[in-house]
Amino acid sequence: MNELMLKGERAKQASFCLSSMSSGQKDKALTEIARMLVERTEEILDANSIDVENAENKGITGALIDRLTLTSERVKSMANGLLDISELPDPVGEVISMWKRPNGLLIGKQRVPIGVIGIIYEARPNVTADVAGLSLKTGNAVILRGGSEAINSNKAVVTIINDVLCRLNFPEGAVQLIEDTSRQTAAQMMKLNRYIDVLIPRGGSGLIQAVIENSTIPVIKTGTGNCHVYVDGESDIKMAEDIIVNAKTDRPGVCNAAETLLVDSAIAQQFLPPALQRLKDMNVELRGCETTRKIFGGVKTATEEDWHTEYLDYILAVKVVKGIDEAIEHINKYGSGHSEAIVTADYSNAQRFLQQVDAAAVYVNASTRFTDGGEFGFGAELGISTQKLHARGPMGLKELTTVKYIVYGSGQIR
Amino acid sequence: MNELMLKGERAKQASFCLSSMSSGQKDKALTEIARMLVERTEEILDANSIDVENAENKGITGALIDRLTLTSERVKSMANGLLDISELPDPVGEVISMWKRPNGLLIGKQRVPIGVIGIIYEARPNVTADVAGLSLKTGNAVILRGGSEAINSNKAVVTIINDVLCRLNFPEGAVQLIEDTSRQTAAQMMKLNRYIDVLIPRGGSGLIQAVIENSTIPVIKTGTGNCHVYVDGESDIKMAEDIIVNAKTDRPGVCNAAETLLVDSAIAQQFLPPALQRLKDMNVELRGCETTRKIFGGVKTATEEDWHTEYLDYILAVKVVKGIDEAIEHINKYGSGHSEAIVTADYSNAQRFLQQVDAAAVYVNASTRFTDGGEFGFGAELGISTQKLHARGPMGLKELTTVKYIVYGSGQIR
Repeated sequence: MNELMLKGERAKQASFCLSSMSSGQKDKALTEIARMLVERTEEILDANSIDVENAENKGITGALIDRLTLTSERVKSMANGLLDISELPDPVGEVISMWKRPNGLLIGKQRVPIGVIGIIYEARPNVTADVAGLSLKTGNAVILRGGSEAINSNKAVVTIINDVLCRLNFPEGAVQLIEDTSRQTAAQMMKLNRYIDVLIPRGGSGLIQAVIENSTIPVIKTGTGNCHVYVDGESDIKMAEDIIVNAKTDRPGVCNAAETLLVDSAIAQQFLPPALQRLKDMNVELRGCETTRKIFGGVKTATEEDWHTEYLDYILAVKVVKGIDEAIEHINKYGSGHSEAIVTADYSNAQRFLQQVDAAAVYVNASTRFTDGGEFGFGAELGISTQKLHARGPMGLKELTTVKYIVYGSGQIR
Repeated sequence: MNELMLKGERAKQASFCLSSMSSGQKDKALTEIARMLVERTEEILDANSIDVENAENKGITGALIDRLTLTSERVKSMANGLLDISELPDPVGEVISMWKRPNGLLIGKQRVPIGVIGIIYEARPNVTADVAGLSLKTGNAVILRGGSEAINSNKAVVTIINDVLCRLNFPEGAVQLIEDTSRQTAAQMMKLNRYIDVLIPRGGSGLIQAVIENSTIPVIKTGTGNCHVYVDGESDIKMAEDIIVNAKTDRPGVCNAAETLLVDSAIAQQFLPPALQRLKDMNVELRGCETTRKIFGGVKTATEEDWHTEYLDYILAVKVVKGIDEAIEHINKYGSGHSEAIVTADYSNAQRFLQQVDAAAVYVNASTRFTDGGEFGFGAELGISTQKLHARGPMGLKELTTVKYIVYGSGQIR
């Protein structure tokens, strides 16, 4: 049994014990970890500065360095995240429904921890505390495999977590970090279906694709968002303008930002010039279909690839369509099933869009930017699922649980 | 684009259309298919006789031939299965919960079809009608890949289904059969994650393992049941005897049958002799631990492998344990997470067993044989999931749906 399998075995054993822990015990651990992260900030920052120096020596710059870098502010915010989680209701143990069968059997469907969660993620060390917190709260053991860039920071954070867990008599193996950040180890981890119940990749689409293709563990796919805003022929033009500007520019680097604007040809002449001017003034690069380019100058030609692309940047593709049917068809063909919005004053078009668009979240007259655990009222969030099994849309604490049927009998046989 | 991808593309297109069909339309299709299956029984039996002849020529005998063979009775029962499904409530469209956010957004969580379901199954042609019916009812398109042994029967059934669907203006591609039953095509199907949303293997553990290892589509694992009955020190001996006899012998070939009996050493001397005698009288082969063998004669020695084995036969492994802790540990180590039962008169042991045993269904004082969609009151069943994501335990119609968030706004931006 190699090191990784040992970790798997330890996590499995820990999960049996964690599943019986009370909400009080788990919340106590979360608040204590939060306190110790702040108290031992220096330790974390020292480790982090090694990571940052190594990254800089490798020639890494800009956004990646920024994501990697911790400050005492950022450690504080990691700690606050854990305190927030501790205040949420514990989903474990809830009996969702219970019914009596004609033979007298009383059958209950109860929410229980999933067991062992595996996470493969990239350079942001705050994910370590975040995911450990969500897992502990829901009674799951977790195996973390962060990126090599953040390894020293991750080790420091996990050491502090485990010091607290040990002091509070949590089982060894509740939170484990894979310190070997080689690709081979990640590949081995993806085959540990004997120990790990669900694997969640968090990072770029390359990472997610690799996990989907190689994992024998059930995977939850998160994050890719090629989102659209469709402006219907009958719509409030000012509202439509505000929504596309917000959906594109509020935070272009996140998955719920809009990437393509679809406009009904009936309203294009009237809507596009002021809306595109406003976007242009905000430094959004526009790539449009031929009709768009005729209506508004300075728009580059959109290619087939543009309709497929999640820019995550100040770029917007624009297409004039022949009404709602073409809009829905375009979205179902090119969208990633994340968040889709229609702006319309027409009742039946609103209902059709909600029904026929195949996505995790479908909006009428609101920005796609609301697809978020916090905005939905779930509190914490582990990511946004764009697949259809188990979890779809923002994943809160409930999505880190499964169910078990508990059956009370009095000697029934079949 | 090859033939298989074309089928995928057609299924995807059909799924968009199916998702909007009313319960009335879907139930009408089910009852019409049921009627036509009976009316065209001869066609099905002719095709089936070719399959049976081919199988016999290959030297196949016994249970496999029996599973493959259709009679007018069996066709009738396929049709009745569809009528039963048509009478169940349609889960699609149900808004499970809906809430208003402080910013006025009204967010609803709505049950919608999954999209395209893929099934890979073995020699039983009745699965074809069954799965097509469950998929149609829940608004999903389905791609069926049955075994080569039943290919002619499957073709006949799918032809009849599609004749009805065509007449009722259902989209082409709602129900498709892969007629090429080669392993290569099955392997290709497992990689069609662009078109197929969930893949469900139904058959032996070899098939299930192959799908888990090779599929890039999310898989729902069904069926493996290494189930235990634990007789606690404080328990009604007559009840315990009835339960183990029922769990082992009522239908040994199914997944919810018991494979191992665990007995508290405090009660072993008293319980085992009459219970094992009764099992022996029913031709159950017994394989026991050393203590069991001392207490009751004629028991073979159980090896480590026996604790792991799902016999699906008149064989039972027997182990005397030191109380509930060892029983739970044994079950969590060797069990397949299907169905587990304790027989006890002790309140706190009952509660501990329900909480600490990690399985889809956990019973107090009842036979494991009740883990079944019909027995649970779900009506139809697509199989029993032994994994933890999406569905666990008997999978009814609801488990063939996913959710979508529908969001009603009035111009909200972030």
